[in-house]
Amino acid sequence: MSRIDGRTPDQLRPVTIERGWSKHAEGSVLISFGDTKVLCTASVTEGVPRWRKGSGEGWVTAEYSMLPRATNTRGDRESVRGRIGGRTHEISRLIGRSLRAVIDYKALGENTVVLDCDVLQADGGTRTAAITGSYVALADAITWAQGRKLVKPGRKPLTGTVSAVSVGIVAGTPLLDLRYEEDVKADTDMNVVCTGDGRFVEVQGTAEAEPFARDELNALLDLAVTGCTELATAQRTALDTVLER
Amino acid sequence: MSRIDGRTPDQLRPVTIERGWSKHAEGSVLISFGDTKVLCTASVTEGVPRWRKGSGEGWVTAEYSMLPRATNTRGDRESVRGRIGGRTHEISRLIGRSLRAVIDYKALGENTVVLDCDVLQADGGTRTAAITGSYVALADAITWAQGRKLVKPGRKPLTGTVSAVSVGIVAGTPLLDLRYEEDVKADTDMNVVCTGDGRFVEVQGTAEAEPFARDELNALLDLAVTGCTELATAQRTALDTVLER
Amino acid sequence: MSRIDGRTPDQLRPVTIERGWSKHAEGSVLISFGDTKVLCTASVTEGVPRWRKGSGEGWVTAEYSMLPRATNTRGDRESVRGRIGGRTHEISRLIGRSLRAVIDYKALGENTVVLDCDVLQADGGTRTAAITGSYVALADAITWAQGRKLVKPGRKPLTGTVSAVSVGIVAGTPLLDLRYEEDVKADTDMNVVCTGDGRFVEVQGTAEAEPFARDELNALLDLAVTGCTELATAQRTALDTVLER
Amino acid sequence: MSRIDGRTPDQLRPVTIERGWSKHAEGSVLISFGDTKVLCTASVTEGVPRWRKGSGEGWVTAEYSMLPRATNTRGDRESVRGRIGGRTHEISRLIGRSLRAVIDYKALGENTVVLDCDVLQADGGTRTAAITGSYVALADAITWAQGRKLVKPGRKPLTGTVSAVSVGIVAGTPLLDLRYEEDVKADTDMNVVCTGDGRFVEVQGTAEAEPFARDELNALLDLAVTGCTELATAQRTALDTVLER
Amino acid sequence: MSRIDGRTPDQLRPVTIERGWSKHAEGSVLISFGDTKVLCTASVTEGVPRWRKGSGEGWVTAEYSMLPRATNTRGDRESVRGRIGGRTHEISRLIGRSLRAVIDYKALGENTVVLDCDVLQADGGTRTAAITGSYVALADAITWAQGRKLVKPGRKPLTGTVSAVSVGIVAGTPLLDLRYEEDVKADTDMNVVCTGDGRFVEVQGTAEAEPFARDELNALLDLAVTGCTELATAQRTALDTVLER
Amino acid sequence: MSRIDGRTPDQLRPVTIERGWSKHAEGSVLISFGDTKVLCTASVTEGVPRWRKGSGEGWVTAEYSMLPRATNTRGDRESVRGRIGGRTHEISRLIGRSLRAVIDYKALGENTVVLDCDVLQADGGTRTAAITGSYVALADAITWAQGRKLVKPGRKPLTGTVSAVSVGIVAGTPLLDLRYEEDVKADTDMNVVCTGDGRFVEVQGTAEAEPFARDELNALLDLAVTGCTELATAQRTALDTVLER
Repeated sequence: MSRIDGRTPDQLRPVTIERGWSKHAEGSVLISFGDTKVLCTASVTEGVPRWRKGSGEGWVTAEYSMLPRATNTRGDRESVRGRIGGRTHEISRLIGRSLRAVIDYKALGENTVVLDCDVLQADGGTRTAAITGSYVALADAITWAQGRKLVKPGRKPLTGTVSAVSVGIVAGTPLLDLRYEEDVKADTDMNVVCTGDGRFVEVQGTAEAEPFARDELNALLDLAVTGCTELATAQRTALDTVLER
Repeated sequence: MSRIDGRTPDQLRPVTIERGWSKHAEGSVLISFGDTKVLCTASVTEGVPRWRKGSGEGWVTAEYSMLPRATNTRGDRESVRGRIGGRTHEISRLIGRSLRAVIDYKALGENTVVLDCDVLQADGGTRTAAITGSYVALADAITWAQGRKLVKPGRKPLTGTVSAVSVGIVAGTPLLDLRYEEDVKADTDMNVVCTGDGRFVEVQGTAEAEPFARDELNALLDLAVTGCTELATAQRTALDTVLER
Repeated sequence: MSRIDGRTPDQLRPVTIERGWSKHAEGSVLISFGDTKVLCTASVTEGVPRWRKGSGEGWVTAEYSMLPRATNTRGDRESVRGRIGGRTHEISRLIGRSLRAVIDYKALGENTVVLDCDVLQADGGTRTAAITGSYVALADAITWAQGRKLVKPGRKPLTGTVSAVSVGIVAGTPLLDLRYEEDVKADTDMNVVCTGDGRFVEVQGTAEAEPFARDELNALLDLAVTGCTELATAQRTALDTVLER
Repeated sequence: MSRIDGRTPDQLRPVTIERGWSKHAEGSVLISFGDTKVLCTASVTEGVPRWRKGSGEGWVTAEYSMLPRATNTRGDRESVRGRIGGRTHEISRLIGRSLRAVIDYKALGENTVVLDCDVLQADGGTRTAAITGSYVALADAITWAQGRKLVKPGRKPLTGTVSAVSVGIVAGTPLLDLRYEEDVKADTDMNVVCTGDGRFVEVQGTAEAEPFARDELNALLDLAVTGCTELATAQRTALDTVLER
Repeated sequence: MSRIDGRTPDQLRPVTIERGWSKHAEGSVLISFGDTKVLCTASVTEGVPRWRKGSGEGWVTAEYSMLPRATNTRGDRESVRGRIGGRTHEISRLIGRSLRAVIDYKALGENTVVLDCDVLQADGGTRTAAITGSYVALADAITWAQGRKLVKPGRKPLTGTVSAVSVGIVAGTPLLDLRYEEDVKADTDMNVVCTGDGRFVEVQGTAEAEPFARDELNALLDLAVTGCTELATAQRTALDTVLER
Repeated sequence: MSRIDGRTPDQLRPVTIERGWSKHAEGSVLISFGDTKVLCTASVTEGVPRWRKGSGEGWVTAEYSMLPRATNTRGDRESVRGRIGGRTHEISRLIGRSLRAVIDYKALGENTVVLDCDVLQADGGTRTAAITGSYVALADAITWAQGRKLVKPGRKPLTGTVSAVSVGIVAGTPLLDLRYEEDVKADTDMNVVCTGDGRFVEVQGTAEAEPFARDELNALLDLAVTGCTELATAQRTALDTVLER
């Protein structure tokens, strides 16, 4: 079976990671997974939410949103509707948890980093692009905080790296990094978040049409680990260049 | 390692499934997993949401909520706060997807079933108890709809059974069906939804403290499949008795 | 005239009061007036709302809610609608005022008790069952607070007992404790809250169809006082047993 | 005991009823009970809410609100807070029920009348002034609707008149028509809505400090009936003049 | 061309300014521009919003609202809809900015004045009437604050006077102070806020149908300055009398 | 006086207009005024809002929003706060009015165009960049609609062009196209929307610190007209190239 865009089943779409996209944010990345484009900004503030004050520990959280016309048909703004939808809530929470998995709160100190992930254009995999890009923005923000001595010298708030990718079974074949057209046809859809050392942070698999068997699950996990490893390399490459501010 | 309540690592808490709890609902179940008690009601209405009208297909959806004092400290009511929290949204969506996995929309016809899962007392595993109990309430509601000829004779809207259980790694040991005290100490927490024939509907694993390796994931999945199989038996036993209305 | 369920006009439905229903709450009661079932939990916290701080006085408040399928047809959740309806507001306020009528704020000290009254099944009289059950939950919560020394030794925060019942005129006959089918046919509907010594805390009478005359009002008040007296006895009996925690 | 403003216990404050206050509304009244001033407008529209369509019956409803500085200290606007408070809800519902008690829905036909009661200045008794003024605005609106043939010739949508007054026990003495300073000191506070023929539409008595006995209740009801009778006369006098449009 | 009400193009409607309308507010004015009637109250409180604390400077803000039946057809209450509309927001902000233009924050000291502008009846020009009336209410409130020593002796928080008027081009003719019927027919609509010394605080011109040329803009500004000058005189006359409290 | 970035008082910042930025929208433009970057998408749908149905006329509306970290310090999301702020409302309305000024509703037919203006990075002049960019996106969307025959052959929905610029008085000097640092120091701030033929659609001038005189107003208008003329040229140049889809 050949994919819409000619990829092999285990091939990612072209990934670009543009650091320093915003002049205001402490870290910012415009990431693209093919036509999916997400702007990830990391905002650092001294202090932590009330429930964490005096703990000596920091906090990292995330908010995900789609521009109304990021998709094929225009969606209502959640600000206009006056409430955040379940999908938005769910993805925001997933991104936050994923990044916190590689944070040493003590090393971060009583600082807060908020990751804003705004989908400028959507073509499947927006949440996985958001996690992958946010990690890079977070790394830049922490470097910034170290430069400002908000983080104590010698402390390393990042304990590892994290990236994410979607996998799914389309017409019986396990595929890596689904585009929107593939996603809507998938029988099973899974988002996997891995650390750079190949362990799992999140595994979220959903049977869209047909329940899936253990060996299908295994095939999907194999693909996802491959994808995350490649994404980790792309993150490392992006971070290897010097960011001018 | 012995568990707080003396269970073995692969042992469920006592499960009770009380059908026909409510005199108004078309299906209703008070389910308990140990001290976790969830009231699941299934409400059948003719017709479907606007976006589905004329399709000849039905719809199944779910809403999850906790009573304010279901937990150890009182939580604010979401109705008073004026908005539904992310966790509630996430669980409601999970329950709905899980049940839809065993529904044949065509066979259901243009009818809607709403599952309300209200947690009367919480001690870990509320979402998995809600899914497991809702399946039974849904089965009763469909029987009711068949009796009323809302569902055409000979059609079987249910294509299988579904149950769910939580698993997690606590102090290095994979455990089945976590109580609250275990849940807060778990390094990895996973909710698994299975069909009665042992396939997966949802797999949601989260590293709470430490990323988890592939073999840990496998051990957790083994436990979960065992637990879901037992729960499927409990569901069958409960449904085998005649429900007087 | 004989009533649907064979009761005489001045007869209550069977009343059950199950204390200690919840393992978490400081006081909890599952009360039933016939098929009406309300779970009342009392949550004690040290401290008072901001406007009362430093007064040396405590506070008691209540929140009432119905599960969506407590009634014959499913109602939307107020949390989903994003706002609390007028009826819910009105009943919550009534329950709070009724219980505060038997509270000595000074004796309670700067502690807050929140009563949550969640209607699990409705068949008329939900607010009166909620008040009657909440009193018992409140009494247990105060005993708990005394045991924990939150309330100073020798102080008695409860100055009396309180119970409530509905009365109404159906087809010209004054009836005690209306079921739902009676309630919808009533020309006049009245909710009466009495103290154990036979005085009034609240009298709320409403002409549903036809204005009512003074002698009809008097007949309804007579019935209500009778009913509240019986309920006070049921409360006392329930509280006479020792509650194991 | 002499009252703050020199009134006898059974004396109303000066009442003024200014009809035709607004040039836009079908009925409008600026009513004052002493320093309490409420603007009541009645808006007539053809048609009824969805749930009543095709019934041949009309509908009457009311909304009550206070201007932010109607009271001694400024209150937040409910529009700014984004939600209506319990007190507002409760009073709006009371006004609507009170007026519907004298409406023949069939005679009104499928028309809707909305009463808006906006308190311009508050000094106790705002809800009773609102009911008393709204009746007059409603009467004018119905006359307007009859003139426009919205109401069929010969049909009388009003089946009677309705007025309301507050009573309370202050320092042991039952008093009629409480001012704010009296209201805050009252042990018992009661709002009574009567028809012009002396029957009751609503009786809402609340023990603010001390439960009240049956004879106290009777004394308050006597006072209230006296007050409502006087208010009915004031309404009749106001309506006797010809309203120029 | 003659105007509906016989005015010349550069003629204001009759203006009345009734001070001391409310017994509670520190400043209050019922202003009318013809049939447009706005109740403006000024509420003084010690202290300032959090973001201004410790600055030694005061704050002045405004909230505008229309009663539901101020207009020809009834509008929904913003409190019932649960959100404030764009027009309301826009006008509230305009009134606040206009009044702050003549305030010396230092001289005011850490006090806050809130202007509430509630439109009781609307016939065009509600925002300009609100600004013009609010200035007078604000002046009275500041006098009150000086009397209470909230404002330090010798300090003058008001640095000038401010008034506002609408102008527009109707059927090719520039007109001053548009009534509603003129407003809806205007090609261009402009609201102008001036200080008493003839300078501009706000100029807001909008092409409703046809873009406007520079000379039309000039003609409108000429008219507006004339109108504001007259309104400044009316404000001065109103403030010249002694206000009894 | 030299400006921060070396511009002369009557010089615009570099303007870039990137058409076809989004693959989904019928028209899309990424516009920059220096460091201010706004993504403008135009979404075309058949049909009009309910209040306009059957009129044969179309509708154009706009929504403006800022990404949380578009500015120097992170702002809360309006979707999270649950309500849209006054500034957002005001700007959305301004953009909509500005574009409608050059629309022939009849020629557009019963189609709706929604302009979404999302500020990706802010450095002053976001609303004027949004209007200027939206015009180009709107032009592309209308061309698209003509290609799809949604707009009837031969009809020209656009009656002209529209662009906008900010001007202000900083330290006594009138300046064109203010950056953020200039904007916060401006005594007077004005936003001007012009048609391509040099007439005014909107003039919004605000005295931030000091009221402004007529000659200052004139100087600002002169500058604004110059700026809008240049922007109209930039729009024309951008639209002259062929947009590949």
